[in-house]
Amino acid sequence: MIKTDILIIGAGPTGLFAVFEAGLLQLKCHLIDALPQAGGQCSEIYPKKPIYDIPGFPEVLAGDLVDNLMEQIKPFQPGFTLGERAQTIEKLDDGSFIVTTNKGTKHHAPIVAIAGGLGSFEPRKPLLENLQKYEDNGIAYIIKDPEIYRDKRVVIAGGGDSALDWSIFLADVASEVTLVHRRNEFRGALDSVEKVQQLKNQGRLNLITPAEIVGLQGDEKLESVLIRKTANAAEDIKLKVDSFIPLFGLSPKLGPIADWGLEIEKNAIKVDNTLDYQTNIPGIYAIGDVNTYPGKLKLILCGFHEATLMCQSAYQRIYPDKKYVMKYTTVGGVTGFDGSKKEAPKAVVKSIN
Amino acid sequence: MIKTDILIIGAGPTGLFAVFEAGLLQLKCHLIDALPQAGGQCSEIYPKKPIYDIPGFPEVLAGDLVDNLMEQIKPFQPGFTLGERAQTIEKLDDGSFIVTTNKGTKHHAPIVAIAGGLGSFEPRKPLLENLQKYEDNGIAYIIKDPEIYRDKRVVIAGGGDSALDWSIFLADVASEVTLVHRRNEFRGALDSVEKVQQLKNQGRLNLITPAEIVGLQGDEKLESVLIRKTANAAEDIKLKVDSFIPLFGLSPKLGPIADWGLEIEKNAIKVDNTLDYQTNIPGIYAIGDVNTYPGKLKLILCGFHEATLMCQSAYQRIYPDKKYVMKYTTVGGVTGFDGSKKEAPKAVVKSIN
Ligand SMILES: Cc1cc2nc3c(=O)[nH]c(=O)nc-3n(C[C@H](O)[C@H](O)[C@H](O)COP(=O)(O)OP(=O)(O)OC[C@H]3O[C@@H](n4cnc5c(N)ncnc54)[C@H](O)[C@@H]3O)c2cc1C
Ligand SMILES: Cc1cc2nc3c(=O)[nH]c(=O)nc-3n(C[C@H](O)[C@H](O)[C@H](O)COP(=O)(O)OP(=O)(O)OC[C@H]3O[C@@H](n4cnc5c(N)ncnc54)[C@H](O)[C@@H]3O)c2cc1C
Repeated sequence: MIKTDILIIGAGPTGLFAVFEAGLLQLKCHLIDALPQAGGQCSEIYPKKPIYDIPGFPEVLAGDLVDNLMEQIKPFQPGFTLGERAQTIEKLDDGSFIVTTNKGTKHHAPIVAIAGGLGSFEPRKPLLENLQKYEDNGIAYIIKDPEIYRDKRVVIAGGGDSALDWSIFLADVASEVTLVHRRNEFRGALDSVEKVQQLKNQGRLNLITPAEIVGLQGDEKLESVLIRKTANAAEDIKLKVDSFIPLFGLSPKLGPIADWGLEIEKNAIKVDNTLDYQTNIPGIYAIGDVNTYPGKLKLILCGFHEATLMCQSAYQRIYPDKKYVMKYTTVGGVTGFDGSKKEAPKAVVKSIN
Repeated sequence: MIKTDILIIGAGPTGLFAVFEAGLLQLKCHLIDALPQAGGQCSEIYPKKPIYDIPGFPEVLAGDLVDNLMEQIKPFQPGFTLGERAQTIEKLDDGSFIVTTNKGTKHHAPIVAIAGGLGSFEPRKPLLENLQKYEDNGIAYIIKDPEIYRDKRVVIAGGGDSALDWSIFLADVASEVTLVHRRNEFRGALDSVEKVQQLKNQGRLNLITPAEIVGLQGDEKLESVLIRKTANAAEDIKLKVDSFIPLFGLSPKLGPIADWGLEIEKNAIKVDNTLDYQTNIPGIYAIGDVNTYPGKLKLILCGFHEATLMCQSAYQRIYPDKKYVMKYTTVGGVTGFDGSKKEAPKAVVKSIN
């Protein structure tokens, strides 16, 4: 059982910044995310694109923003349960919560902050017979650790950035990479498209287009895929592979959270008020893209503000008798749980003679 | 008469960021500030100190944050009325406002956003006879343009960072700099204190401590000051000067805004709600440190959020019939009033053969 002060569901920019604000209040955080990496939409959908409306950054790449946030929260040593979806919640008699993931990992905390964005990112799957049989057994929709493909035969399907970028990356790792796409045209960053063309010309990548995977075979685990190039099934290509990675994008689904007894409106969690972003269940907050209230803007900078106010309220719930006196970080510095201390250089009082 | 869409009172971080959010909505802004420079508390009180809780900046100097914000809003060409205090407001029949400063400059806008922080920064003045007579006539409390002291004899009074830093700066500009402080000890950044000591040792700066200015003389304009080092008035030093600059700090005063008919609580403007931060007078908003509501935190990041929601509401007031559809900056880019356009590199759709 993982224990923490604030259990944050969703490691997007909002959830990450909540760790910082909680840390200033000496509260510890643990984050759960369905994705294998932190950063939410910023990391998953547009890591290499610039954002222009983060205050103080005339321009920042979404991926760099996430890196900066990770650096900023480092002193507060957040825990992470990545690649797992928060599935069920249980309220104990003392008012605290146990949240269990789809893989059975249990988390216990007095406060739950849902920073789930548009929902848990779930892969779009191809419609294929026996698909489930081979999941985690030759088929993966998200690449957590590319090293497991070292010297293996891999087939990737898809026509967007992920398919392009992972084909390029795995060309150096796998023994054989085959990229299958149902069109000749790919959609992605120009340099990625050009790099794939180059790898293909060099014979370091097999490209099969326009084509689709139509069948999966193998006893225990995936052993081969059937690739259809023409309308004639007799011409299907049977390709021996160790892994099949369909990269058709991830789409966010509010998912199990919708069944937690929270008020849902427009596919988002309604918060009781905009003063602390608490939901209809005391002790559960909703911050960032996942919440809704009149005039809600799904913007990163709004999530930062919401996370900050939420942490103050969480503190009062955990310590109803303590009066917290806010200190500016410039004045009080930042004291990490790791013993680190950042602080502004002090003024001196010194005579001049 | 200066005309604009949103008249912002206060050019602190909140007011500055409001320019950006308004610009995304194609609304123009003009800012009034009592200080000669933008940045509010960040520029005036702690420009060289680090802030640790701006989201995405593990550490940023307050002055650099202001520079970044100025850079970020540049495409939206804000107007500035600096060094003037917004004094009176008048509501016209059409619901728009005219705001006049203490120097008589008039501004006309349908929306007024008060981002006045802790108030208009007003200098702490010494208690001296005839002080007012010489104001702007040999006496200044804020240095707007150091060039006016070139080859002049200047006496500075004070013992903090401003007194130290301006003494250092003017030592290179003025023909004679005298620094007077009522103690031997100065309070400031170590390197500033050391630099003043060095200038004094080199004879490039006269230091008179512990001492006070006790008298001002001159027919039309200031011609000399009386400096008292001992309890014996007979020993007062008469120093011929062109300028006397008392730098005893600026303290913020809500000031005239308190008389505008707005609901005031705890020296701040009560907002009706936290959805758009409108005050009890429709069309006047209060954002950043200057407003109050239950759980209000006087933090920069909260001002950013408040400014953003305020601009959406202002847009609806100005264009009641238009439906604004928000576009992410990453997707829609940023189109400046100066014709500039920032935009994410577009994905290509390209075939690979
Ligand atoms: C192309 C694009 C461009 C954008 N441009 C801008 C812009 O310019 N400016 C701006 O402010 N915003 C922009 N946005 C929006 C911005 O990315 C979001 O507002 C922001 O990511 C929201 O942050 P969040 O932390 O609230 O949620 P998210 O970033 O969505 O993160 C939520 C995380 O929670 C996880 N999660 C959800 N439910 C569960 C569960 N049950 N179990 C485990 N994990 C779960 C998800 O997997 C996800 O990682 C853009 C978005 C897109 C897609
Ligand atoms: C030493 C110190 C350290 C701090 N550290 C932090 C920190 O670490 N993190 C953080 O988030 N915050 C910190 N703060 C607080 C932060 O600086 C404020 O929250 C922020 O400056 C508020 O911004 P603002 O734009 O709302 O108001 P301000 O910065 O106060 O700007 C308001 C401006 O309005 C002008 N004004 C007011 N009335 C009038 C008028 N009638 N006419 C003309 N001009 C007027 C003023 O002159 C001023 O320039 C700190 C503050 C101090 C003093």
